[in-house]
Amino acid sequence: MSSFKLHGIVPPVVTPLTHDFKVDKPSLRKVVRHLIDGGVHGLFVLGSTSECVFLNASQRADVLATVAEENNGRVPMVAGTMDPTTDRVIEHAKQARDAGMQGLVVTAPFYTRTSQAETIDHFTMIRDAVDLPILAYDLPVCVHIKLERPTLRALYDKGVICALKDSSGDDGNMRMVMRDFGGNDDFSILTGSEIMVDGALLGGAHGCVPGLGNVDPAGYVRLYEAAKRGDWVAARKEQERLIELFQIVFQGVPDTSPNASGVGGFKTAMQLLGIIENRHMSRPNKVLSDEKVARIKAILGATGLLKS
Amino acid sequence: MSSFKLHGIVPPVVTPLTHDFKVDKPSLRKVVRHLIDGGVHGLFVLGSTSECVFLNASQRADVLATVAEENNGRVPMVAGTMDPTTDRVIEHAKQARDAGMQGLVVTAPFYTRTSQAETIDHFTMIRDAVDLPILAYDLPVCVHIKLERPTLRALYDKGVICALKDSSGDDGNMRMVMRDFGGNDDFSILTGSEIMVDGALLGGAHGCVPGLGNVDPAGYVRLYEAAKRGDWVAARKEQERLIELFQIVFQGVPDTSPNASGVGGFKTAMQLLGIIENRHMSRPNKVLSDEKVARIKAILGATGLLKS
Amino acid sequence: MSSFKLHGIVPPVVTPLTHDFKVDKPSLRKVVRHLIDGGVHGLFVLGSTSECVFLNASQRADVLATVAEENNGRVPMVAGTMDPTTDRVIEHAKQARDAGMQGLVVTAPFYTRTSQAETIDHFTMIRDAVDLPILAYDLPVCVHIKLERPTLRALYDKGVICALKDSSGDDGNMRMVMRDFGGNDDFSILTGSEIMVDGALLGGAHGCVPGLGNVDPAGYVRLYEAAKRGDWVAARKEQERLIELFQIVFQGVPDTSPNASGVGGFKTAMQLLGIIENRHMSRPNKVLSDEKVARIKAILGATGLLKS
Amino acid sequence: MSSFKLHGIVPPVVTPLTHDFKVDKPSLRKVVRHLIDGGVHGLFVLGSTSECVFLNASQRADVLATVAEENNGRVPMVAGTMDPTTDRVIEHAKQARDAGMQGLVVTAPFYTRTSQAETIDHFTMIRDAVDLPILAYDLPVCVHIKLERPTLRALYDKGVICALKDSSGDDGNMRMVMRDFGGNDDFSILTGSEIMVDGALLGGAHGCVPGLGNVDPAGYVRLYEAAKRGDWVAARKEQERLIELFQIVFQGVPDTSPNASGVGGFKTAMQLLGIIENRHMSRPNKVLSDEKVARIKAILGATGLLKS
Repeated sequence: MSSFKLHGIVPPVVTPLTHDFKVDKPSLRKVVRHLIDGGVHGLFVLGSTSECVFLNASQRADVLATVAEENNGRVPMVAGTMDPTTDRVIEHAKQARDAGMQGLVVTAPFYTRTSQAETIDHFTMIRDAVDLPILAYDLPVCVHIKLERPTLRALYDKGVICALKDSSGDDGNMRMVMRDFGGNDDFSILTGSEIMVDGALLGGAHGCVPGLGNVDPAGYVRLYEAAKRGDWVAARKEQERLIELFQIVFQGVPDTSPNASGVGGFKTAMQLLGIIENRHMSRPNKVLSDEKVARIKAILGATGLLKS
Repeated sequence: MSSFKLHGIVPPVVTPLTHDFKVDKPSLRKVVRHLIDGGVHGLFVLGSTSECVFLNASQRADVLATVAEENNGRVPMVAGTMDPTTDRVIEHAKQARDAGMQGLVVTAPFYTRTSQAETIDHFTMIRDAVDLPILAYDLPVCVHIKLERPTLRALYDKGVICALKDSSGDDGNMRMVMRDFGGNDDFSILTGSEIMVDGALLGGAHGCVPGLGNVDPAGYVRLYEAAKRGDWVAARKEQERLIELFQIVFQGVPDTSPNASGVGGFKTAMQLLGIIENRHMSRPNKVLSDEKVARIKAILGATGLLKS
Repeated sequence: MSSFKLHGIVPPVVTPLTHDFKVDKPSLRKVVRHLIDGGVHGLFVLGSTSECVFLNASQRADVLATVAEENNGRVPMVAGTMDPTTDRVIEHAKQARDAGMQGLVVTAPFYTRTSQAETIDHFTMIRDAVDLPILAYDLPVCVHIKLERPTLRALYDKGVICALKDSSGDDGNMRMVMRDFGGNDDFSILTGSEIMVDGALLGGAHGCVPGLGNVDPAGYVRLYEAAKRGDWVAARKEQERLIELFQIVFQGVPDTSPNASGVGGFKTAMQLLGIIENRHMSRPNKVLSDEKVARIKAILGATGLLKS
Repeated sequence: MSSFKLHGIVPPVVTPLTHDFKVDKPSLRKVVRHLIDGGVHGLFVLGSTSECVFLNASQRADVLATVAEENNGRVPMVAGTMDPTTDRVIEHAKQARDAGMQGLVVTAPFYTRTSQAETIDHFTMIRDAVDLPILAYDLPVCVHIKLERPTLRALYDKGVICALKDSSGDDGNMRMVMRDFGGNDDFSILTGSEIMVDGALLGGAHGCVPGLGNVDPAGYVRLYEAAKRGDWVAARKEQERLIELFQIVFQGVPDTSPNASGVGGFKTAMQLLGIIENRHMSRPNKVLSDEKVARIKAILGATGLLKS
């Protein structure tokens, strides 16, 4: 576990679907190539943006196998294991390990209300059951519990987690976590925000897990590389272009849920860019209307991704 | 679907576990007998109190088969289908149908953020896939979305749902739902509260799904029957005794989560009463300490369930 | 303090306004007469429904003096003292005392984030400064902190509070408070709900503070009296009529805030019934449109308050 | 209004108190000198950190006069006007104008629930009543409503507001506001965060309103100046030192509220540094214990502010 340290741009890989809601493997292969061609530093399979909780074990197996095969060892792969409770997560973790993933991404339990102490047990039990590095995934908007600073520290000190993916939206707290782990070079902090990457990297984050990276991986890689060489003006400028591109996630609401608007916006853009075949999500997410598609197309044009 | 109308006391059946976290079938059979001997009007299998989201498909199958066999048609059975998303719920729904359940209990999607319109689609897709009556389960504390009044009405008008199990804690809103369905005799409203049953029945509820009914089914049946015959003083008196008994759910906190304190409290009481073998819950719920067990024992004594 | 025990129907007295936002004293006198003629058991002046936080010290003085004069000792009067912090509340408390109020209604501090321990100090400092009985006002929707069960108990045991006005909407918790104070005959529990009064009285509440009581005080008095004589069927029937009447509070949204819809709905109904001159609220609450007024008029007709 | 644009470090000026809770004017003068000597670019009087909502009109007048006199025109001054409702805010606004403040800081209404449309009216009515530039103060943790992006835009387009003070903690949304106002050079965005200033300035913020600036104004000025000259490494390093200093705000909890821990922490540090006489806050905030004071002293030492 000690040698595994994620950094850079690690997008949550979108899961394209066929019309009958199977995993669209050819499109998924194209997504992987698109990301690796864009220069990403790792792949996060079966994340929230990947519609993980919509997929059953068989579909998750298809995703894991397809991505692993297409990636063929070029970049590190980590896999989400999202499900409500410990032993069900362990089943997914074993599946991910067997599919060749190098790390696991684990949230707190959800649906059930769990204390911070039980959350520590949850992560520890998973670590004990499957010998892979664990990235703690802080995502209160979905799991409705915060991974508090002392919880993260306890899990690191016990050797259970090696990284944080912070999708809490509480960037101030993430900055405090950076402080808490300031002296721990083997701990990675990755922001889940698409629009605060320059500031997060300035503050000390090691990388980013941008859903929008499915649409424009090269943009995020440029942002990261500018930051690495200390060119913060260039990093900010790239970030500002990506913020414009990020407007695609808001086009669906209020006709759809934020989820269907956000991931649906990514899929729509990827379809328009010729990367995937279909833009629909898993049920019951609503499909964006043609009018919304037109707006997303306009945004792709304005941000230089699509020639008119 | 039209002839199915739940009423009365329909407890969520606790799921006893063996030491290695399998379904403890002999204990589960004793739970079912305990409930039916207590006079309950139906069984709600695989509810939140049953630790549904902790159980995989195989464990759920064990629960469904064991309860169905032990019940042997004596009272109606409905089954929870809890999982985050539509198609995964449909898998559970088919399993429940095949195990002989007469109805499904369905929540809104969770983990993913879903709109009211997508929630309507969610229920409708499940109804279309499995021809069983559906009880809408309003449980924002777990799924973090409210089944709003217009949503319930739309689902009823489309023939998708036949009942509401209201575990929202918002009894004022439930009263408004009673008003909304005042003229619809084929729609049932069941409260999920253990401590507001007299008032709910006075207001027009048709029954109750009390987790605490696992400990004292006969008490809830007495409460219900008093209310049915209009003896509200007797109903209130029984309710007040059950409120004292309900204190068992608070003994665990803050050492455990509310969940481990609540369901763990039920299990501890049932173990003390000789109904089940073990009191532990699924992982990562913490086990109540001996000191907490002693306190629960004292409450059982004070409320007349355990002779000292 | 020992002899003061509120019970029965104690409406929060609506504050009518002139066109230039002064207290409309003649209308306010008519409101008081309307309430006392309706048989109410007390008056709660300067409550949330009275737009208390919109009124400065001079306006509050006008309200207090006008109500006290018109009431002329017929029923007990208590006064809200709402403002964010302790010493500012004490100024209002002194004003209320000097105006002849028999009790104070006090919330937790707001705007500032206060702990339960500091909340106990807040109430205690007010009690020490002004020798009047205090009703604790639990209103998390406005002050965003809950008066927790141990806090209420501690304040009672210290002799600081003599009653609870529960507007929390958490009727299950209120039932637990009823249990906690089951042996304390000198402690009153009043529900702030308009639509759950029958159930609250069945559960042991001593009365109700219904904003809707401004529109139909006699209806609430009938409900209360039916409950007192144990005629729960009659109580429920009256409650159900009042629930229909309560629909007036929903007509404004989403064009206005819930506040402007609710209190604005009361004021509109009172204007239609000829009790007050104007229906506008304090700024910046929006005024209900003519179309909404027509709907409220229809509800008044359907519930028997207005002849067509 | 057009020529007024805040930028740089504009601390919310702490309000020192005498033992009998009057404004400690000599200490307040020392605070003002301490801030101006530290190089701050403006003063925000009567902010949340200034305990604004604890102060009555007379105390607010003392603060305004004392600061205005001591500042003597050296830096721009803006004043908070916090109270729950429009017309009461207008009274404070007039007082601030008459005391020579150059701008007003205004929140959404609180206690009462207000819609976004009514919030727009609220700001507009205040602007119409008092001809001073208005900074919109986004502070959902206190007022429990968000100033949404379209609300801010509408207020700017109507000429009502000239700046945002963002204390929402939602830095991602603030970044979107920066985008929304990217082409409006006459609109200022100031972050209320103490610990995310480098990132906010990188993203395009014009300044900061740091409560911690009362303790170390020169540190924040160094941070700001480093950012202005594009030396982001120096800015980050200064920020990291200030993050260590910021730990003083956490020492009080859980023995006190977050408010008493935070502002109480600032006051304690300022007393230790010899700037103010007393460290207690307004009632009912608890005073930090001697043990907490010792911890704060240690932090001051470790961050170079206090010689041992």
